[in-house]
Amino acid sequence: MKKALLVIAHGSRRNTANDEVAALADRIAAKAGGRYQQVSACFLELATPSIEQAIETAIGNGAIDITLFPYFLSAGQHVANDIPEVVDLCQRRHPQVVMNLLPHLGQSLELVDLIDTLVD
Amino acid sequence: MKKALLVIAHGSRRNTANDEVAALADRIAAKAGGRYQQVSACFLELATPSIEQAIETAIGNGAIDITLFPYFLSAGQHVANDIPEVVDLCQRRHPQVVMNLLPHLGQSLELVDLIDTLVD
Repeated sequence: MKKALLVIAHGSRRNTANDEVAALADRIAAKAGGRYQQVSACFLELATPSIEQAIETAIGNGAIDITLFPYFLSAGQHVANDIPEVVDLCQRRHPQVVMNLLPHLGQSLELVDLIDTLVD
Repeated sequence: MKKALLVIAHGSRRNTANDEVAALADRIAAKAGGRYQQVSACFLELATPSIEQAIETAIGNGAIDITLFPYFLSAGQHVANDIPEVVDLCQRRHPQVVMNLLPHLGQSLELVDLIDTLVD
């Protein structure tokens, strides 16, 4: 397993909310075809696996290239500091693995196009 | 002014996060063309205008049809209960106004397509 995609969500005390993120990761996996050999959800807090656990699992499964996608709408403390800190810690522990932290969802200009169709 | 779109966000203590939502509403307004005569952001908590304030303002400006879009990723307590309660309260106060509360963003299946392009 070479390439992994981790969808990072905040995490909730409500299991159903965390399950929604896991289901989203499954749907992304189905669309991603062969581009990623693993797509899974992980959580900043309140739920497992943590970001760190998910990275370690992916590496344990043979990932050498990990893309991390923050499933957040707003660039708060979590997106600006907390997530980069965890990724940086893992990157220093595994310098041979490529880790690519993407901009958060809310940053995407295409989101406007999507919302435009939803409110039609 | 007949038709208004209100983008409902959670609201943050950080002004920049609230400003992001207002900027999003402006971009949606630019795309929406003539479909909505007003597009604006409102907040469930921690920021203003509140949902109720935004509805009252829209009605004061002549809106007779108000679409409400919850800019939330996860169907938690806020999406399931808090937002519908406020909208219901306003609807009972203004029975002559059409109020259409849409599913929240995270419910959109097209979100998977968008994320698929973002992680490419």
